[in-house]
Amino acid sequence: MARFFMAGTNIHGGRAIIKGRDAEHVQVLRLRPGEDLVICDGQGTDYKCRLVKADREQAEAEVLEVVRCPAEPTVKVSVLCGLPKGDRSDYIIQKSVEAGAEEILFFDCARCIAKPDKPEKKLERWQRIAEEAAKQSGRGIIPQVGWAGDLAGALDLALKKELGLFLYETGEREPLDRVLEASRQVRTAALITGPEGGFEKFEADLARIAGLHVCSMGERILRCETAPVVALTALMYATGNLS
Amino acid sequence: MARFFMAGTNIHGGRAIIKGRDAEHVQVLRLRPGEDLVICDGQGTDYKCRLVKADREQAEAEVLEVVRCPAEPTVKVSVLCGLPKGDRSDYIIQKSVEAGAEEILFFDCARCIAKPDKPEKKLERWQRIAEEAAKQSGRGIIPQVGWAGDLAGALDLALKKELGLFLYETGEREPLDRVLEASRQVRTAALITGPEGGFEKFEADLARIAGLHVCSMGERILRCETAPVVALTALMYATGNLS
Repeated sequence: MARFFMAGTNIHGGRAIIKGRDAEHVQVLRLRPGEDLVICDGQGTDYKCRLVKADREQAEAEVLEVVRCPAEPTVKVSVLCGLPKGDRSDYIIQKSVEAGAEEILFFDCARCIAKPDKPEKKLERWQRIAEEAAKQSGRGIIPQVGWAGDLAGALDLALKKELGLFLYETGEREPLDRVLEASRQVRTAALITGPEGGFEKFEADLARIAGLHVCSMGERILRCETAPVVALTALMYATGNLS
Repeated sequence: MARFFMAGTNIHGGRAIIKGRDAEHVQVLRLRPGEDLVICDGQGTDYKCRLVKADREQAEAEVLEVVRCPAEPTVKVSVLCGLPKGDRSDYIIQKSVEAGAEEILFFDCARCIAKPDKPEKKLERWQRIAEEAAKQSGRGIIPQVGWAGDLAGALDLALKKELGLFLYETGEREPLDRVLEASRQVRTAALITGPEGGFEKFEADLARIAGLHVCSMGERILRCETAPVVALTALMYATGNLS
């Protein structure tokens, strides 16, 4: 069924008013009065609607039912990644949104090859990728894409969550499954993964001292754009959000 | 540490002889006598070696230790995917190899948009992608990429495994976690995922009748190139191969 995001304020008294680009989209999809669609308030609530009127400028729909979006996981996960090169960030955003992330934040750290001169310039494009992926995968929110500054900023954000994982390739680490099996009920979590070259040892040490779980994901070396999606999937699986 | 794949027969009496493209690669990496490298027989065994000689045509290394490659999972997973469009197959291959697949096979089915005129033409390129990903992620084998024909061929292959999962987006399905938690000890498994438009109902019915587990992965709709990697990650996690 067609899904649209809109501000909750456009729904009043059992009627939804669809304007602008979304009204055009209703026309592009050739939706006719009498057909059903879902309007999502972007906060996790779905309005199941039936189309009443569809003009180029405006469409109107009758609200049939208001439900919590079933695609939203019970755990809000912040995915924090060392900024990668090229279009790998696009990939991380798209796949993390599909896999259920609440937000995706990039940061600068020791081995980042990509140097974020003006990351805010990229945010608009990144946010569009998140919005497209959210629509396509049936999410109830549009995950936010942002810039977390440096590793200290990322650690600070992660420490505010019930569970903070720092994925690291070598040395002293906790097995991911042991940590996750003790965390099945968490409501907020953060996953930190590195850029192309991974993290320096001092960065992992800092994460550990700060109180994060420094974890391994097995002996296979994952690319920097693969690691966040694999970690997020494991977390979703462990918390019962993949069934 | 640098990793090379080679036929096991090139190792005799504690000496490894590296020829051809791999000998050139030793030079490109500027490895010098006295430096260590790993030579993998492609069957899951790693030969930890020290370089003795490095010429353009041939390099020689002394075998220090022979170990089972720690990156190889305990479960051999066949990833079977409805052939997707464009470069999505490349992506599925690369990520499935990183995530631990034993083999990746494509097949034709009802909603395939990509029509495989001569899939065998693609196999050589696909196999190179698998080899590169295997080297990069430290795998002990080079997963094979192949063509499984049609859905019947894919079902037949899946039924030969201890565990066969058919990932499907709607209707009657078993929760993935319930199936996987009952299958923690499996040694062979197959995952079947659909092309861009997913599967037709009759295809899912056929899989169920044949004896596969028709499973859901939650309410988020995953792209055809994301689903295999998510399913594989969940299986690796559940069988203790992600820690």
